[in-house]
Amino acid sequence: MAKAESAKADTLKARLPRGFVDRRADEIAAQHRMLETIRQSFELYGFEALETPFVEYTESLGKFLPDLDRPNEGVFSFQDDDESWLSLRYDLTAPLARHVAEHFDAIPKPYRSFRAGYVFRNEKPGPGRFRQFMQCDADIVGAGSVAADAEICMLMADTLEKLGLSGQYVIKVNNRKVLDGVMEAIGLAGEDKAGQRLTVLRAIDKLDRLGVDGVRQLLGEGRKDESGDVTRGAGLSPDAIERILAYVSFQAAPDSEGDRMAFWEQFFGSWSDVVGSSETGQEGIAELHAIMRLCAAAGYGHDRIRADPSVVRGLEYYTGPVYEAELTFPVTNEDGQTVRFGSVAGGGRYDGLVGRFRAEPVPATGFSIGVSRLMSALQLIKSPLLEGTAKPGPVVVLVLDRDNIADYQRLVARLREAGIRAELYLGGSGMKAQMKYADRRGSPCAIIQGSNEREAGEVQVKDLIEGARAAGAIASNAEWKAARPAQFSVKEDEMVERVREVLARHF
Amino acid sequence: MAKAESAKADTLKARLPRGFVDRRADEIAAQHRMLETIRQSFELYGFEALETPFVEYTESLGKFLPDLDRPNEGVFSFQDDDESWLSLRYDLTAPLARHVAEHFDAIPKPYRSFRAGYVFRNEKPGPGRFRQFMQCDADIVGAGSVAADAEICMLMADTLEKLGLSGQYVIKVNNRKVLDGVMEAIGLAGEDKAGQRLTVLRAIDKLDRLGVDGVRQLLGEGRKDESGDVTRGAGLSPDAIERILAYVSFQAAPDSEGDRMAFWEQFFGSWSDVVGSSETGQEGIAELHAIMRLCAAAGYGHDRIRADPSVVRGLEYYTGPVYEAELTFPVTNEDGQTVRFGSVAGGGRYDGLVGRFRAEPVPATGFSIGVSRLMSALQLIKSPLLEGTAKPGPVVVLVLDRDNIADYQRLVARLREAGIRAELYLGGSGMKAQMKYADRRGSPCAIIQGSNEREAGEVQVKDLIEGARAAGAIASNAEWKAARPAQFSVKEDEMVERVREVLARHF
Repeated sequence: MAKAESAKADTLKARLPRGFVDRRADEIAAQHRMLETIRQSFELYGFEALETPFVEYTESLGKFLPDLDRPNEGVFSFQDDDESWLSLRYDLTAPLARHVAEHFDAIPKPYRSFRAGYVFRNEKPGPGRFRQFMQCDADIVGAGSVAADAEICMLMADTLEKLGLSGQYVIKVNNRKVLDGVMEAIGLAGEDKAGQRLTVLRAIDKLDRLGVDGVRQLLGEGRKDESGDVTRGAGLSPDAIERILAYVSFQAAPDSEGDRMAFWEQFFGSWSDVVGSSETGQEGIAELHAIMRLCAAAGYGHDRIRADPSVVRGLEYYTGPVYEAELTFPVTNEDGQTVRFGSVAGGGRYDGLVGRFRAEPVPATGFSIGVSRLMSALQLIKSPLLEGTAKPGPVVVLVLDRDNIADYQRLVARLREAGIRAELYLGGSGMKAQMKYADRRGSPCAIIQGSNEREAGEVQVKDLIEGARAAGAIASNAEWKAARPAQFSVKEDEMVERVREVLARHF
Repeated sequence: MAKAESAKADTLKARLPRGFVDRRADEIAAQHRMLETIRQSFELYGFEALETPFVEYTESLGKFLPDLDRPNEGVFSFQDDDESWLSLRYDLTAPLARHVAEHFDAIPKPYRSFRAGYVFRNEKPGPGRFRQFMQCDADIVGAGSVAADAEICMLMADTLEKLGLSGQYVIKVNNRKVLDGVMEAIGLAGEDKAGQRLTVLRAIDKLDRLGVDGVRQLLGEGRKDESGDVTRGAGLSPDAIERILAYVSFQAAPDSEGDRMAFWEQFFGSWSDVVGSSETGQEGIAELHAIMRLCAAAGYGHDRIRADPSVVRGLEYYTGPVYEAELTFPVTNEDGQTVRFGSVAGGGRYDGLVGRFRAEPVPATGFSIGVSRLMSALQLIKSPLLEGTAKPGPVVVLVLDRDNIADYQRLVARLREAGIRAELYLGGSGMKAQMKYADRRGSPCAIIQGSNEREAGEVQVKDLIEGARAAGAIASNAEWKAARPAQFSVKEDEMVERVREVLARHF
């Protein structure tokens, strides 16, 4: 083997494990702006920041991952020195429950907490599906009243308003107890029917994607998709199927505002028929009705917050109200169809989660924002919120004469002292490569000082943005050289002032 | 077993693994302020934000942990589906090297990058020593010139200035090549002397703690400490020992500013004698001299940046200049002695690290801030930078009549619309407990509305800060009730205005 090949074989391949990504300056700045807006909204509602570590005892996190039949597989785990199992957190709810239980007496309750941070899923990555992604959660622990659920729904709505999504979202609310009541009413109560209930819930969850007919098939004998694959159905009777379809198809009409209270009276009246005599179901409807009354009284129309029977939510630990924030503007999906952008946040009441540590239930409710999905939405609608987050590049001071580098350093120091983002060119290349570097950095201007300029106590200021524009307009090379657009000499003492003028022209 | 006991036995213990901690709102806000200041300083110097994931291939990270004889043990590792080993990053330098190598052609070089984020060490935790802690790094990749090292030193100094540490820090610079030169001069060159060289470096590293006599023992036969434990020495000859001590004891006098250039001439002249004919040593001195000249020319006196032969730095991948930011103000250590606060940041040149992926060396230099240690320092000197980071609690609207909760919700909505941090009391307790809750939340005021007030269209505004103050001054209970200090009735329409006045009085 030749020496070069041998050296090559010895080098490592620079790569990341699948499902993990690096993020560059523009993306970081845009996300920072979005999270700051969310933080302000949460703080206005009296929520307090909390940060928990990335690593927890595996048993503290529990087995609550959604959509996983083999729950342990979704988590990154490893053993500590003392053989106990540790895991990377897979959401921000389980660590909150651990934190509250650990510091129960020291925390004033109801406890309003918010957290933003990365979570990890040891799943198969795919397009837009990562093994490390960010969530931003708000929760109220220690409040059993549905007033807490109403506050969470209003917080979700107000936060989306502040992010510039006014008129482009709806908070959809349902209640697990109503779903349980519907099941009871069609004879699916009891432990032995748990599997069948899960199949029904998953069928309802697909209403958006498959429509009423598709869900009807999934509730009955089953469904064959376009590829010929068959999904087994729940095997319900035709009567039970129509009862469920009547329930999930009953939508609050988003364009008829009218008398809100009267609207909800009628709405929940018809739900009440569906759950029949189920006590759980009636309790769930009463809770939902109370949430809608509170939101309506506080001025939130059903164009912003409304009950919706199709909201299910994947997590099994929810015990009451569940909610979802949906963005309603149209996008084109992979199949070329126009669909709503869809869910960007969701949550619900989980009265049992803190109680795992305390032998008594501790009521809790909260929601989680999918940060990168919400960011995609803001980028898609070109939200004004993200304007100006991309930083212009630095002013680059070129180095033409390496022996006088201390002089160039002094020019850089002057610019920085004036608060102007600036850097010394630190590479080993010549003038042409240095100009190319400044271009690639997105520099607004370059400072050039050859020996003639130095003797005269001057520098050349080159406006790179104006220069690029002029270069497009001027035809011949000779004309270009004669005009020398956007480049001028100034005394060293005037450099800062003139650079400021160039920056003011462009930003 | 009784039922209660059985339930108790079934509950999990709420706890974190050793070396991991939660952080509350005040701490998060203070750290955020500090990191924003650092970010602005880095951006002014032309550095670009970068974020890499927490998980990397184990082999990408390499075995570069300091102070560990068994390097693999310091890392949290686990296997991926395909059997390859993954690890939590243990610093921010190895992931940067991987990123640059992976995107080498797309990145304009020299590449100035900064990153802030948590890193993980699978080590024994102790007081102030965590298994998850934050670092904040700035690096320049692709610049072999010592002008890059000088920029890094200036950046460290300017960043500490911006953090309010003016006059309380010094950036100490050394060069691994000089240390190698000294070794060579005393006959410790060559692969077979590597162990002995490491012993010498570790001895030098202890100069601050043990003084000249302690280091002399460690360079010779060895040293017995107070507990009677013996540390084996490097076994050098008396002549070699005195030569090293002459070198490490030569300090730049921090209080004689004078002619900077002349000072460094004399300073490095004497170092030159120590390394003698070693080429590496002379090269190192020339580099250090050049760094000092650049810093001096840019206006940094040796009270801010100075050469110091005692700086060693633990990481084995450094290949040239090394530097350390030391805070100089006095603190009392565990033994009751007054010492300098010490190092808060450090780094150096690591020309081989990117090259692991590329079969060619890629020059790079940078430093890392220990975020929590720097934060401790700012708290210790009561830095004005951290003032006002702790948020006042929310205005709490009490709920006296649960049937009218929608009315209370409306009051909260009014306050929030006016941008005032406010919340509805969501618990189930009575008036007294609600007031106690507001106190524990640090609320500036509470809004109270009983049935009488509601009928009159009024609310009571209770100024809790003024109330607490007055309560201390008023002696008798009767007097207290008569005065009702800091509580007054207002029309609902005036509530926002009057709450604003209360807030303005206190913040």
